[in-house]
Amino acid sequence: MIKRYANPKIAAIFSDEHKLELWQETELAVIGAMEDFQFIRTGIFEEIGEILRMFPIDLEWWEKRDEEIHHDLNAFLDERLRHLDTKYHKFFHKNITSYDTEEPAFGRMLTEATDVIMTLTNDLEETLINLAIKYRYTIMNARTHGQEAELQSFGARCLTWLAELRMAKVSLNHSAINLTYSKLSGAIGKYGSLDPRVEEEALDFLGFSPFYGSTQIMPRVLYAPLGQSLCNMVSVLSKIGLDIRLGARSGRPILQEPFKKKQKGSSAMPHKKNTIRTEQLAGMATMARGYMMMISENIVTWEERAIEQSSVERVAWPDLFHVTAHALKVISGVLKELTVYTDNMLLEVHESRGVYASSEVKEWLKTHLGNSGLTHEDIYRIVQIAGFNVFEPEQEMMLIRETNCGSTQEALGLLRRIGPASDKRKVVSIEKFIPQAKLRVSSSLDISQDQVDVYNEALKKLFKNKQLKKSWKELFTPGFLLKNEDTLYKNILEI
Amino acid sequence: MIKRYANPKIAAIFSDEHKLELWQETELAVIGAMEDFQFIRTGIFEEIGEILRMFPIDLEWWEKRDEEIHHDLNAFLDERLRHLDTKYHKFFHKNITSYDTEEPAFGRMLTEATDVIMTLTNDLEETLINLAIKYRYTIMNARTHGQEAELQSFGARCLTWLAELRMAKVSLNHSAINLTYSKLSGAIGKYGSLDPRVEEEALDFLGFSPFYGSTQIMPRVLYAPLGQSLCNMVSVLSKIGLDIRLGARSGRPILQEPFKKKQKGSSAMPHKKNTIRTEQLAGMATMARGYMMMISENIVTWEERAIEQSSVERVAWPDLFHVTAHALKVISGVLKELTVYTDNMLLEVHESRGVYASSEVKEWLKTHLGNSGLTHEDIYRIVQIAGFNVFEPEQEMMLIRETNCGSTQEALGLLRRIGPASDKRKVVSIEKFIPQAKLRVSSSLDISQDQVDVYNEALKKLFKNKQLKKSWKELFTPGFLLKNEDTLYKNILEI
Amino acid sequence: MIKRYANPKIAAIFSDEHKLELWQETELAVIGAMEDFQFIRTGIFEEIGEILRMFPIDLEWWEKRDEEIHHDLNAFLDERLRHLDTKYHKFFHKNITSYDTEEPAFGRMLTEATDVIMTLTNDLEETLINLAIKYRYTIMNARTHGQEAELQSFGARCLTWLAELRMAKVSLNHSAINLTYSKLSGAIGKYGSLDPRVEEEALDFLGFSPFYGSTQIMPRVLYAPLGQSLCNMVSVLSKIGLDIRLGARSGRPILQEPFKKKQKGSSAMPHKKNTIRTEQLAGMATMARGYMMMISENIVTWEERAIEQSSVERVAWPDLFHVTAHALKVISGVLKELTVYTDNMLLEVHESRGVYASSEVKEWLKTHLGNSGLTHEDIYRIVQIAGFNVFEPEQEMMLIRETNCGSTQEALGLLRRIGPASDKRKVVSIEKFIPQAKLRVSSSLDISQDQVDVYNEALKKLFKNKQLKKSWKELFTPGFLLKNEDTLYKNILEI
Amino acid sequence: MIKRYANPKIAAIFSDEHKLELWQETELAVIGAMEDFQFIRTGIFEEIGEILRMFPIDLEWWEKRDEEIHHDLNAFLDERLRHLDTKYHKFFHKNITSYDTEEPAFGRMLTEATDVIMTLTNDLEETLINLAIKYRYTIMNARTHGQEAELQSFGARCLTWLAELRMAKVSLNHSAINLTYSKLSGAIGKYGSLDPRVEEEALDFLGFSPFYGSTQIMPRVLYAPLGQSLCNMVSVLSKIGLDIRLGARSGRPILQEPFKKKQKGSSAMPHKKNTIRTEQLAGMATMARGYMMMISENIVTWEERAIEQSSVERVAWPDLFHVTAHALKVISGVLKELTVYTDNMLLEVHESRGVYASSEVKEWLKTHLGNSGLTHEDIYRIVQIAGFNVFEPEQEMMLIRETNCGSTQEALGLLRRIGPASDKRKVVSIEKFIPQAKLRVSSSLDISQDQVDVYNEALKKLFKNKQLKKSWKELFTPGFLLKNEDTLYKNILEI
Repeated sequence: MIKRYANPKIAAIFSDEHKLELWQETELAVIGAMEDFQFIRTGIFEEIGEILRMFPIDLEWWEKRDEEIHHDLNAFLDERLRHLDTKYHKFFHKNITSYDTEEPAFGRMLTEATDVIMTLTNDLEETLINLAIKYRYTIMNARTHGQEAELQSFGARCLTWLAELRMAKVSLNHSAINLTYSKLSGAIGKYGSLDPRVEEEALDFLGFSPFYGSTQIMPRVLYAPLGQSLCNMVSVLSKIGLDIRLGARSGRPILQEPFKKKQKGSSAMPHKKNTIRTEQLAGMATMARGYMMMISENIVTWEERAIEQSSVERVAWPDLFHVTAHALKVISGVLKELTVYTDNMLLEVHESRGVYASSEVKEWLKTHLGNSGLTHEDIYRIVQIAGFNVFEPEQEMMLIRETNCGSTQEALGLLRRIGPASDKRKVVSIEKFIPQAKLRVSSSLDISQDQVDVYNEALKKLFKNKQLKKSWKELFTPGFLLKNEDTLYKNILEI
Repeated sequence: MIKRYANPKIAAIFSDEHKLELWQETELAVIGAMEDFQFIRTGIFEEIGEILRMFPIDLEWWEKRDEEIHHDLNAFLDERLRHLDTKYHKFFHKNITSYDTEEPAFGRMLTEATDVIMTLTNDLEETLINLAIKYRYTIMNARTHGQEAELQSFGARCLTWLAELRMAKVSLNHSAINLTYSKLSGAIGKYGSLDPRVEEEALDFLGFSPFYGSTQIMPRVLYAPLGQSLCNMVSVLSKIGLDIRLGARSGRPILQEPFKKKQKGSSAMPHKKNTIRTEQLAGMATMARGYMMMISENIVTWEERAIEQSSVERVAWPDLFHVTAHALKVISGVLKELTVYTDNMLLEVHESRGVYASSEVKEWLKTHLGNSGLTHEDIYRIVQIAGFNVFEPEQEMMLIRETNCGSTQEALGLLRRIGPASDKRKVVSIEKFIPQAKLRVSSSLDISQDQVDVYNEALKKLFKNKQLKKSWKELFTPGFLLKNEDTLYKNILEI
Repeated sequence: MIKRYANPKIAAIFSDEHKLELWQETELAVIGAMEDFQFIRTGIFEEIGEILRMFPIDLEWWEKRDEEIHHDLNAFLDERLRHLDTKYHKFFHKNITSYDTEEPAFGRMLTEATDVIMTLTNDLEETLINLAIKYRYTIMNARTHGQEAELQSFGARCLTWLAELRMAKVSLNHSAINLTYSKLSGAIGKYGSLDPRVEEEALDFLGFSPFYGSTQIMPRVLYAPLGQSLCNMVSVLSKIGLDIRLGARSGRPILQEPFKKKQKGSSAMPHKKNTIRTEQLAGMATMARGYMMMISENIVTWEERAIEQSSVERVAWPDLFHVTAHALKVISGVLKELTVYTDNMLLEVHESRGVYASSEVKEWLKTHLGNSGLTHEDIYRIVQIAGFNVFEPEQEMMLIRETNCGSTQEALGLLRRIGPASDKRKVVSIEKFIPQAKLRVSSSLDISQDQVDVYNEALKKLFKNKQLKKSWKELFTPGFLLKNEDTLYKNILEI
Repeated sequence: MIKRYANPKIAAIFSDEHKLELWQETELAVIGAMEDFQFIRTGIFEEIGEILRMFPIDLEWWEKRDEEIHHDLNAFLDERLRHLDTKYHKFFHKNITSYDTEEPAFGRMLTEATDVIMTLTNDLEETLINLAIKYRYTIMNARTHGQEAELQSFGARCLTWLAELRMAKVSLNHSAINLTYSKLSGAIGKYGSLDPRVEEEALDFLGFSPFYGSTQIMPRVLYAPLGQSLCNMVSVLSKIGLDIRLGARSGRPILQEPFKKKQKGSSAMPHKKNTIRTEQLAGMATMARGYMMMISENIVTWEERAIEQSSVERVAWPDLFHVTAHALKVISGVLKELTVYTDNMLLEVHESRGVYASSEVKEWLKTHLGNSGLTHEDIYRIVQIAGFNVFEPEQEMMLIRETNCGSTQEALGLLRRIGPASDKRKVVSIEKFIPQAKLRVSSSLDISQDQVDVYNEALKKLFKNKQLKKSWKELFTPGFLLKNEDTLYKNILEI
């Protein structure tokens, strides 16, 4: 992975240096286990171990040897054996094959890298919990299909992010179970040379249980879910980033990712505060999908093994972990310094003209207009008409909308009119509009004047009853609309 | 493909009925060519052709036979042969193998389906041209990173959509060139039985040139680019849809996909006009990528052929064409009845406070402050500060922003304050703000009061020169900012 | 999915008919739960339920309505409501949104389809167990990199297939846990209208627990692992198919998929028994990857929901299940009637000239040549030379190999010589070759005559010791080489 | 890309160093063009150019600056400007935006990298042509579905590889056409600041034509086909590798990738010559697909641009080029030193018992048994029975096949019998078998003894005619079977 997106811990885990150390650990574990079962004489394990630890692995020597013999594990053996007296040779890499050495090492690397991800995930979880608590009563319009929907707190939105993240974590944990298995079962997985008890003991020492039924290698169906879980994790992060990015659209931003004090948004347009971090998360998700795809293809391999998957794994695993770690860092950084424009959230609510309660309004009208002869459909249409009417522009605006400019000069003219015209707008909520019973025919709907008259009559009659006023007004209050968010806080945060 | 997204023309092209007709055409073409080269006696072609046309292919009979012998082409031969006297048998499917019959048919189906796509694409192109012309002088904020950038006409945005579409079409045309090749070169592509001249003649009759170097089948690397081009096409459509969908976000929508007069947006929230069509386009692009991936995998096949690719092609090709055709229909429908809120576009421009000209402002200041001792960096920062200052909220708004609510009751209180507070806002453009030389320290930037003072001094001095006023004001006019859009109209539409 | 690959049970589960039944079940469950909490009067549930069951859902009516209002769930509500007296309308779909109705139904469909897959998987597992037992002592060459490796029983290979399958099943089971959650939390997932207790009760009735933290929809990160597990499953099946297909290569096939007695392999070449079923499995895996990719992209969706994922899910989920079910059926069919050419397996072992024991030979030589001054490297090279020598052709064959034909006539000449030349070949095993101490310089290796002489000397000396003969010969026996397969049978089959 | 698979030329092209050089070239080209149109005074271009060339770009300084301001292009400008007197600042990066600088540089890098690929491809093409010529008369069994099919020369197979490669190259060339366009059209692609004539001139200088209709960036639909073509190329290479790998399966290998004289095949099994290079090609194709997918997703981007695609491109493009270059090197290396076991090819032909001519036999019988009352179906079945009969084992072999061993001891017994049994085998070709008219009922076919008798009768009668003998025998000769390969040589190699 290029430096820009690389994570140092992940890089260290997948370094050649670390890999060769892990190979050595496997070799020693096998020697130790053989000694325990007295297949070799007592003392060998200590003697060899001591010598090898005295001579750290020489990476350069190893690389050169690998180029010569085209086999990295054999090159490693050669590098190690040169420090050992010939009398020890027969005990080293005895009865096992290259992939007996490599598979536990590979499993360890995946486990260690998964731990790095888990730590970053836990940190992100903490951040989201803090946001959810901090913004528990900061109200905003939820949006479905990009349209204002019901009211929610920004804290509750953070809870939905948290819940997704936790599910991604659950998957990751499931996938990690497979990493507890490994193999030392030889060139075809049938223990041609090694006693199965030695495998069990050596693997136990390395932190694994034997996987019964491997070929020369562990079946890759064990690892694919890990790659898929990482990809899903990055997708979740990308979704959180997307919501922030959508909230940061200029005009009236409600959210904004951190913008460093010396940062420049654009070389041409100095006013820009671009959403480059959250956009990058979309890129990370794209990459994660690509690497996931590569890893998923690895399952199909020939007979007792072929090496198609090896090159892919050398690249795709570290890069997928880098991408995941980077994405976690980016979103954590964004969330920790997130700017929340609570005023703009309120303004959005205000300008949404009460339609955030349209669902409750519909139910309320169903209850109170139940005996009016109006059907479910009629009541739906009443709220629909009202919801459309309150957004219909006033005359001056309508004129502007209907003007099709024929020149930039005309466009300038309109631009000069729009400010004053806009200042005259009145923001009328359906809270006031519906009781006034002044629904108008809407050009967007196929509902006749006659029908609208019937609706208005019904409304007029209904709202004569002053007793209903209180319950009507309550429909539009945060206290009423957000009352059940407590359930989410209780169940998700246990508070 | 499920009915909801299926295109009837595509369905007909990939129907068994049509496939079997095309198989028959191949068989007859080979007979015809053999006759031409006098490998068989004159008259056979006419005789067999007449009989076969008298007995339309019985699909049911064929299906049943296929189930029995597990070979659909052999089943087809059996179906046809039952109508022919034994004396004709030796002339039918003579010297060729199943895939000699199938490949030209397959190529024909791809060609026909590509034609359907081309027709739909041409229609969409027309629609985009019309929009570009209609909205040539409708101004709007361009957006980069979701932020207001420079000014453009909506017509010019349509031109960028058109330009992308055309590039997708160019690719599609390139890919279609490969469809002009086919093969009749036998079981392993080496003309074991068939004379190469017969291939050339028969293919010519069917509208193809021979591909020299096939195996039993045409190499799938010929077809992958077509699948990839279709996928790219759908991605372009999805991008157009995305822009519309982003423009349709409520608050102040500038675009809106058609909403039928009887349509319902949501079962719960009657006020909703959801962007379901443009969202569906994103789904279509996702599907197209999946099918493209399937088709791309088909290139790798064993030796002189194996049949891995067959099942994939039975599904992925028609479904990819269905998805492409459907996406074209959806976006065409959306664009033909697109609602363009020109008033809101203007409002957005107005409320963007002149920063749409920030790039020109920066260049203008560079020119006129050249001798003031200020660096390029200083001038950049001047425009940046101004661009940030004009969006900084007034006091009441700031108080609201800084209030962290502790209850829904408090939230309600703020909600009641936000309307009036908002009414008091003044929209100040940098057009006025910069000449006033009242830049303020911004909390978003690491620029000291002293530095800001220096900037203000320079501005004050500069704007004393009344002569500059005219060129300054011009910077903010559509006439100035859009002057080069003509180049696009000229080069893209040739008008 | 096209008929050819469709599974009837999967088709039924994802049919509109079934979906609408499940929608009705959700609606009724909500009414029932509301009644339990006395939000509506007792009896409503029974009354409505009775009426609705009297009038089965009219699919045609529904489809027509959907076309009109562009909202399939609203169309469903309309269809149902027309059978209910207006007085019931307010109780139907009360306080919930479309996706409250749809999500549990969707979850149910996924669960039911997963059950179908599980049943097929269990059947396949049974088949593999039977094969493993049947062929416990049928010996064959394992192959790594397509090369003969150590000896194994065919039964043990079946165990490796079984072990992979079981891991795929474990993943599938993990993924299925997520299907136990669903939601009725309203238009934005914050229970705007519905009391959370009603959700809990209604979901419980439908077989789910509430997922706290949904938006309008369940986060798709819950479902992605299911799609990924299905894909992994198909990949495993494809791997099993691949091994069979590799074993079926002509020349000396060791395995062969069933060939029906009336089947035709090729329209041109009557002798063919093509591996069309196992090849099809590769196609199924390709498709599964494509659908999996589509499903994985669905995780990223806008804010409290948008509908990008819907079209994808209508297609990708049923099709992925069809593909998985079909692949399971195909591989089960292949395995149940698999032809195992045990004679050819033996012949392969025989002709592999004892190299299947090369690993044991190397270890044995290390032990017994320990004091000869030869290094680990030397012993490796001894076995390598021997392994190469025994395959080097005899003179006549070598002459043929070295002849580069200049015409088809010459080729015919060689073809006539090859039979007799081949008849004279002697198959010499390293079991005999190494004790003879007649290693030769190999053109494939950079080992000098001098060095080879040293090796031969050492071997000569060693094999003078007649006492070693028995342990040497034992190295090459199935009894010795397969001794640890018992461990696999014990741990995998618990026998 | 990790060192193991990286190509030095590709690495240099995508290095930061080279990128910054190209950025500088763009900046200078713009200055030059401005001077040409007298937007700036004559001489500026030379003056600035001279200074900048005097001070090579300081990568370290640049990196540090980038970390501070989070904008790599602005950091580059700062690095350059520090060497220029303030009086030049206004001319540098004048009227353009970051991506005006970056896009031509990006296009240049893609072009240069494509050239590297083309050179490698041409070299591979040459190698394949040489092989095709060298092995023009080396006969082998073609294989369809892994089964022996008709006869071909190995040279002709090389021609099919060549033909595929050339089609991949055609696609690559088509894709490269898109690289001839670029843009300098400013922050939103509408030439807000820059005169379109300057763009045209500057781009011309850099080797591009203007793309009319860009946004801030070139639409990514222009580049996706390049990524897809590269992926297709690697897939073709992987297919060639696959054929070699299949040919290298032990038992009777016909092809073998080079094995270095010091190479080790396996740490456990010294006799192994593994197909690690051709297997690696499969891994390369998997990676290429992943990167291609990433690049294909980049088409969909927001409005006038967002930066999702940037991170993906920084990784996926160089890595895809590395993978392609590496794959080309690997396959070229394999083919240049490919071992072709012509003796084994012949042996395979010999042991395939004449079925390689089954298609011709069928046609020949159709012609000569035309008046015997046998149908096309009958004749098909005659050849099918014969083709099956000649492979049916003799008694001893059959006994072995039917023995199901109950212990490893029994297995050893069988293993000892198989050698001698095999030595007694007779290889009978259908060339001899069919004229003998001794077809037997086959357990694999549903054809009765009576029917077989009828067939034998017809054959007996036919082959009484001695005159037919010559044409019958000719059916099985290379001269007859390969006669049309000349067509391929002529059309593909023009020889």
